[in-house]
Amino acid sequence: MALHHLIEMQDLTAEEILTILDTARSFREILDRPIKKVPALRGITVCNAFYEASTRTRVSFELAEKRLSADMVNFSVSGSSVKKGESLRDTIQNIEAMKVDVVVIRHHASGAPRFLTRHVSARVINAGDGRHEHPTQALLDLYTIRERKGRIAGLKVAIVGDILHSRVAKSDVWGMLRLGAEVRLVGPRTLMPVGIERTGARVTEDLREGIAGADVVYVLRLQLERMQGGFLPSLREYAMTYGLDRERARWAAPDALIMHPGPINRGVEIQPDLADGPQSVILEQVANGVAVRMAVLYLISGGTPPEAAVAPLLSAVHPAGR
Amino acid sequence: MALHHLIEMQDLTAEEILTILDTARSFREILDRPIKKVPALRGITVCNAFYEASTRTRVSFELAEKRLSADMVNFSVSGSSVKKGESLRDTIQNIEAMKVDVVVIRHHASGAPRFLTRHVSARVINAGDGRHEHPTQALLDLYTIRERKGRIAGLKVAIVGDILHSRVAKSDVWGMLRLGAEVRLVGPRTLMPVGIERTGARVTEDLREGIAGADVVYVLRLQLERMQGGFLPSLREYAMTYGLDRERARWAAPDALIMHPGPINRGVEIQPDLADGPQSVILEQVANGVAVRMAVLYLISGGTPPEAAVAPLLSAVHPAGR
Amino acid sequence: MALHHLIEMQDLTAEEILTILDTARSFREILDRPIKKVPALRGITVCNAFYEASTRTRVSFELAEKRLSADMVNFSVSGSSVKKGESLRDTIQNIEAMKVDVVVIRHHASGAPRFLTRHVSARVINAGDGRHEHPTQALLDLYTIRERKGRIAGLKVAIVGDILHSRVAKSDVWGMLRLGAEVRLVGPRTLMPVGIERTGARVTEDLREGIAGADVVYVLRLQLERMQGGFLPSLREYAMTYGLDRERARWAAPDALIMHPGPINRGVEIQPDLADGPQSVILEQVANGVAVRMAVLYLISGGTPPEAAVAPLLSAVHPAGR
Repeated sequence: MALHHLIEMQDLTAEEILTILDTARSFREILDRPIKKVPALRGITVCNAFYEASTRTRVSFELAEKRLSADMVNFSVSGSSVKKGESLRDTIQNIEAMKVDVVVIRHHASGAPRFLTRHVSARVINAGDGRHEHPTQALLDLYTIRERKGRIAGLKVAIVGDILHSRVAKSDVWGMLRLGAEVRLVGPRTLMPVGIERTGARVTEDLREGIAGADVVYVLRLQLERMQGGFLPSLREYAMTYGLDRERARWAAPDALIMHPGPINRGVEIQPDLADGPQSVILEQVANGVAVRMAVLYLISGGTPPEAAVAPLLSAVHPAGR
Repeated sequence: MALHHLIEMQDLTAEEILTILDTARSFREILDRPIKKVPALRGITVCNAFYEASTRTRVSFELAEKRLSADMVNFSVSGSSVKKGESLRDTIQNIEAMKVDVVVIRHHASGAPRFLTRHVSARVINAGDGRHEHPTQALLDLYTIRERKGRIAGLKVAIVGDILHSRVAKSDVWGMLRLGAEVRLVGPRTLMPVGIERTGARVTEDLREGIAGADVVYVLRLQLERMQGGFLPSLREYAMTYGLDRERARWAAPDALIMHPGPINRGVEIQPDLADGPQSVILEQVANGVAVRMAVLYLISGGTPPEAAVAPLLSAVHPAGR
Repeated sequence: MALHHLIEMQDLTAEEILTILDTARSFREILDRPIKKVPALRGITVCNAFYEASTRTRVSFELAEKRLSADMVNFSVSGSSVKKGESLRDTIQNIEAMKVDVVVIRHHASGAPRFLTRHVSARVINAGDGRHEHPTQALLDLYTIRERKGRIAGLKVAIVGDILHSRVAKSDVWGMLRLGAEVRLVGPRTLMPVGIERTGARVTEDLREGIAGADVVYVLRLQLERMQGGFLPSLREYAMTYGLDRERARWAAPDALIMHPGPINRGVEIQPDLADGPQSVILEQVANGVAVRMAVLYLISGGTPPEAAVAPLLSAVHPAGR
């Protein structure tokens, strides 16, 4: 597979998605070793350009890069020449001129990563752009479901919450439909993108109907700042109508997975006992995220099947690479 | 020794403290080599979670980690999802899910590191929590005294300043008493914790009495923001009553060590000629800090006596590892 | 060559400059390899102390350090104990006590790097101090001209813009004169340092006269905040009088190089078609900057001619180090 950039889940064929997931599985095994590092990308340079604040996605990419032995440089908007009024294109072209191989970009403007691919020769990975897409999140979600359920095709997946503002939801919809899942979008009409049904997903305002018999209930984070936009009458009303608790989770299949992209607003979109309960795979999503990002970085850098890349390293603490 | 976490000096036995100090000595030797790096923690991942601004402690931990060849990820409050209202527990559990082995945490709330140990399986190192403890500072202080004086037991140590707000003072009191020093706490009554005498330390408001014949005079930083809290009448009065200068330093033993945790308010709690003079070991404390943190990181990660871990690396600049 | 610090271009002899440029050429070749990394400074520790915001210079130094396999610690003013009122000297002495070998410093005060050399034993590299000097920028400029023109001596170089506030201009003037170029400074008299002619550079207010027949036209960034200082009547008038476009560039030699230190104010000091056109070497300057900084770091750390230092590393992605 020749993966040049990762911008949108829409771009990927089912086969490409499955290649990424299979490669991620090899890397996932590394993460359970005491020495969680391989020399696969030694000498490759990655620039993490985060134009939006982020802890978990940034840390996840950084760990993925370090565990592949890549070199990395970070920059975020604060303290950068971006504040001097330099354009996105100029900034990244300059950093690329320093011989950066891969740019991981998060940007508040939808389309910024795609724009970059036309102006730099480095490989570009979209780490979230505006309300548009967040493909590595969708890939880690697909990975998690596939590991737990053994497949994606034919599964009933309900995505609950603010679909309109969620780049996670959009990437997940594309990825899950491509792999043959049945996707239901559940939320108030004010938070549902116009025309989203044309993707093939089913839309409902009714939570019970939406999650009935679902194999996966994917709860979106309610971005509390949306309250000010007049999209929602009140936080309390949202929680009462769409908040997931153990009672409501029983409407889904008995062994349904409970998923969330984090960070969680405990007691708003999901109750703590459910988020921490036996059906929840929320922390597995996080762990799998590092492996999926390793796979994307590896394949985008020209890596071939990773058997050779995952031979263990040794250290004094764990001499046998146990 | 099985060191699982480092939260409080109160937790440690004398034997455990001495094991850390002995291990630190092996690592201290590395720091005088041109190639100050060993592969001891290769593939081990450390997360530095600093919820309070810090230069020297953060840099000291980072250097300790790099010189052990550990991988590290940093996050500080600014630019993190902490601002989105996520709880300490959720943030760290998520980062741990990415297969982090050790969390180094500095937090404004006393007890935050202890709290973490109940919710994550990673090893936790307290890099300073509220007014509570700062154990690696106490360990580097003990290391410095022991290297200079050959022992801790039986020494007279005077700690001067704002004991109430100082986590350094509290960790030092516990550690020094455990190793058999005689500890005197010197400062205004308003800055003395109620009941601190029960630890076994002696308390006095009189500087002359406090440092008479002392083998070590440990001057605390006066946190200037305390002035607003009504704890002190004025900076000038504090300097006149408790500020240490060469004249007053003569009340101590002739070869007394002058110590300070930094950063120094020159001319407030200590005069510059004394801070930079021959009795001062302030910069030695800083140098020893890196070695002590290497020892703690190494032991907490399961390292055994470090002979094997300190074999020299080679580079093109210093081919003999001179 | 024994290069102890790099503070000012004024300090360097022609021979020293040429040694740095020759060393940079060896490192420049590494940057076109897939594995852009050598073990030359393994175990050497570099502290990047940026007291002024910077993206490109900071990233360029970081990449140079990583590609030499040095360890590095960063600190910038935000989030540091600098805010607690610690002096520059105390901060750097403390970090040096942690066994840092090289300090790279950017500071708003002219003379801060020179000041440091008197108080620390680490090697110091000036990454830009106030309006004074920015020697690594001048070195990368010289490198770029020499690669393109084969020499510096005898070339006509016109530097256009705000000479008064530009540390880049001052370092370039010293370096270019030292290597035998003819230097012309072009700009309004209000932005020209008093007595600058004594360096040997020629001064003119007339753009056409200044760039007539020039082999190199070096356009300075117009720092927009200068407008408030009353140095300039208006941005529009500046652009009309001194802004460079394709028409005016024809006044220079037909194969003149167009240079700029970045970041560019497109449409102010230079028109976009010229900045992106065939005569422009602006992105080459950026690429060469990493190699020049590798050379400076290497030589300052005691490195000898770099043949041995540039042997290729291997990785799983590019097994032959292609």
